[in-house]
Amino acid sequence: MSAAAYPSLEQARALDRADPLARHRAAFSLPEGVVYLDGNSLGPLPVETPKRVADAVSRQWGEGLVTSWNDAGWIDAPQRIGDKIAGLIGAAPGEVVVTDSTSVNLYKLIMAAAHIDPARTEILTEAGNFPSDLYVANGAARSLGLSLRVVERDALIDAISSATALITLTQVDYRSGYRHGMAALNAAAAEHGTRIVWDLSHSVGAVPLDLGKDRAELAVGCGYKHLNGGPGAPAFLYVAKHLQARLSSPIAGWFGHMAPFAFDGAYQAAAGISRFLAGTPPILSMIALETGVDSMRQVDRRALFEKSAQLFDLFAELAAARCPDLRCISPGDPARRSGHISFAHANAYEIVQALIARNVIGDFRTPDVARFGITPLYLRFEDVWLAVDALAEILEREIWREPQYAVRRAVT
Amino acid sequence: MSAAAYPSLEQARALDRADPLARHRAAFSLPEGVVYLDGNSLGPLPVETPKRVADAVSRQWGEGLVTSWNDAGWIDAPQRIGDKIAGLIGAAPGEVVVTDSTSVNLYKLIMAAAHIDPARTEILTEAGNFPSDLYVANGAARSLGLSLRVVERDALIDAISSATALITLTQVDYRSGYRHGMAALNAAAAEHGTRIVWDLSHSVGAVPLDLGKDRAELAVGCGYKHLNGGPGAPAFLYVAKHLQARLSSPIAGWFGHMAPFAFDGAYQAAAGISRFLAGTPPILSMIALETGVDSMRQVDRRALFEKSAQLFDLFAELAAARCPDLRCISPGDPARRSGHISFAHANAYEIVQALIARNVIGDFRTPDVARFGITPLYLRFEDVWLAVDALAEILEREIWREPQYAVRRAVT
Repeated sequence: MSAAAYPSLEQARALDRADPLARHRAAFSLPEGVVYLDGNSLGPLPVETPKRVADAVSRQWGEGLVTSWNDAGWIDAPQRIGDKIAGLIGAAPGEVVVTDSTSVNLYKLIMAAAHIDPARTEILTEAGNFPSDLYVANGAARSLGLSLRVVERDALIDAISSATALITLTQVDYRSGYRHGMAALNAAAAEHGTRIVWDLSHSVGAVPLDLGKDRAELAVGCGYKHLNGGPGAPAFLYVAKHLQARLSSPIAGWFGHMAPFAFDGAYQAAAGISRFLAGTPPILSMIALETGVDSMRQVDRRALFEKSAQLFDLFAELAAARCPDLRCISPGDPARRSGHISFAHANAYEIVQALIARNVIGDFRTPDVARFGITPLYLRFEDVWLAVDALAEILEREIWREPQYAVRRAVT
Repeated sequence: MSAAAYPSLEQARALDRADPLARHRAAFSLPEGVVYLDGNSLGPLPVETPKRVADAVSRQWGEGLVTSWNDAGWIDAPQRIGDKIAGLIGAAPGEVVVTDSTSVNLYKLIMAAAHIDPARTEILTEAGNFPSDLYVANGAARSLGLSLRVVERDALIDAISSATALITLTQVDYRSGYRHGMAALNAAAAEHGTRIVWDLSHSVGAVPLDLGKDRAELAVGCGYKHLNGGPGAPAFLYVAKHLQARLSSPIAGWFGHMAPFAFDGAYQAAAGISRFLAGTPPILSMIALETGVDSMRQVDRRALFEKSAQLFDLFAELAAARCPDLRCISPGDPARRSGHISFAHANAYEIVQALIARNVIGDFRTPDVARFGITPLYLRFEDVWLAVDALAEILEREIWREPQYAVRRAVT
């Protein structure tokens, strides 16, 4: 064990006793004895969710049957849940809908926005963008006859030019947690008459967001991480009001029609954000998402982000003192970090598997990253202390060398 | 009342007593006293579904958390449920996946298949196609720089030419229930070197399907009608094996990558049908769908389609005798009809509302169609008799003229 001084378990527990958000932990169904540091991948189950999903299944569907499209508000769910998410991200009502997956929504926005100005020839992104976003951008660029220009993060601002049709960025790096400053990048894009599609999957519920103030025009994001909406929860899509009438979804399905049940032969896009809907939404998954969003809305978000920073600092301090072999790759600057802390180690995969065997659930990201979600709604300072304690033991005693921890699984 | 002779309620009940499928009704949670003739719009709740969804929520998500992607088989759900649906439609394992919505899947297949031969200039469809399919086809054609040619049903075969890039058809007309002969149309398309994307939303579970034998190459369909998968259940997508390697999805999301969790920077499409996946699937809705599919798989489908024809015939005979003001617009030919029977009447909207007030749930389709789903898994001959009895009373006593039945609702 390192000789450096570091906070004790008792000190961590004292922080928990003083935590004004501590009561929110009871709103989640967390397995006994598990330290869950993967809420940035799949958020845990809110205790309200089983009841609300069961009601949707047995009463709304089972008893109400098809009349629940009207009577249980299924038909408005994309806009209703969208407005709730709008309140979390500094968007106005009518600027957000819940629909499809993040990948499909990103495709829709790139296809819709990248050809506003036909003189522009390229879509710009960064090499460290989330891989699925790179894939989608590449496919959409090909469909549009544009090139996809991929640059390193430091070269981004200089790469924006009058040839840039659109920029697509994930605000928070899925490995390091590095967070782009949204206002500065939006301003840089606007200077060149272009705009950014932001992927907020790792941002929403994890970092302060004010899309209106920061002049964001386009965004997508997922519902299953910090929004605790359940596995594969539907995603959201944001288009600033002033831009909505200028954009058309490439996937012109009936839910994006101004009157879906008029069964017109000709497509007339809905007036506002609803034009980005496509097919019939998966209601049961939508209701689970709504429950997660509702619990996030009840929280003092300023306190939430303050606690997030404190949990991060404690994790960083303990790891620095006790796990000298781990190299923290997350930014130290509070304005640049986000809802997870990550460490590089050549055997990160095995280390994460050994942690999981000890009921400390983090995740591995290729090639060498151990990543831990910082989720102040339900994570305790004690949990952070125990996680680093397990990490320290696994490293000191080289427990990660045990062969069972090298077995690769389908989803890592 | 008409003087024509028609089967009595007692005769209908005798048919129920002799029905070899009668036991399946107990597998559905149908509200007491309701005659549900809208199973072709939203199928009712299987009694197994609340348990399986609750297990997915509380045990798989709540306790298993992120490990359920591996341990509960979430990661394979699109292929696993796809293979189950393949068994219902005469497709081979590995030819079907469950993903996204019907609209999104139709878009993907049109974009992928319509430009195989760049010399072809038009996408062909029929005017009576489902409106959302027309919208999607029109949007995709615009993206591809192709024209959308819309012809009347009778002119379809003659309209296929060497300029036809792709044909998109819904097999079963959502109003009349007219069913296209799949083998003949596929053969006609093949003669001109083109192919058809079939929308099977009103076919699957309702009419015999043998995609392999009928040489269908491309299809999509929904899970929430005759498959009883729940509101907005995810849709399926079929690509014949021999065509899979030649097609690329325009929406290149990570679930369609050959190794989604390798986080490669470059997209490499999965080898088989999985290349048509895009984002993370909505697991809770997928599990509800799987439950509905499982109950359909347990049924003798030959007996199912025989009973469907008998229910249809009883409905047609009773309506002809007792409701002379209704004009049946569904085909008499058993090879051309499907899982619903429809009637035209200038006041169809009000008639359907008056029926709903009597707990007989059918639906209205603009401009003048009253439509009734024929769902032999749980519909009794007695139900058909009672429905026509209510219809006859509403028409004879002109109950539909009561003003409350003219109030328009969001979803009709």
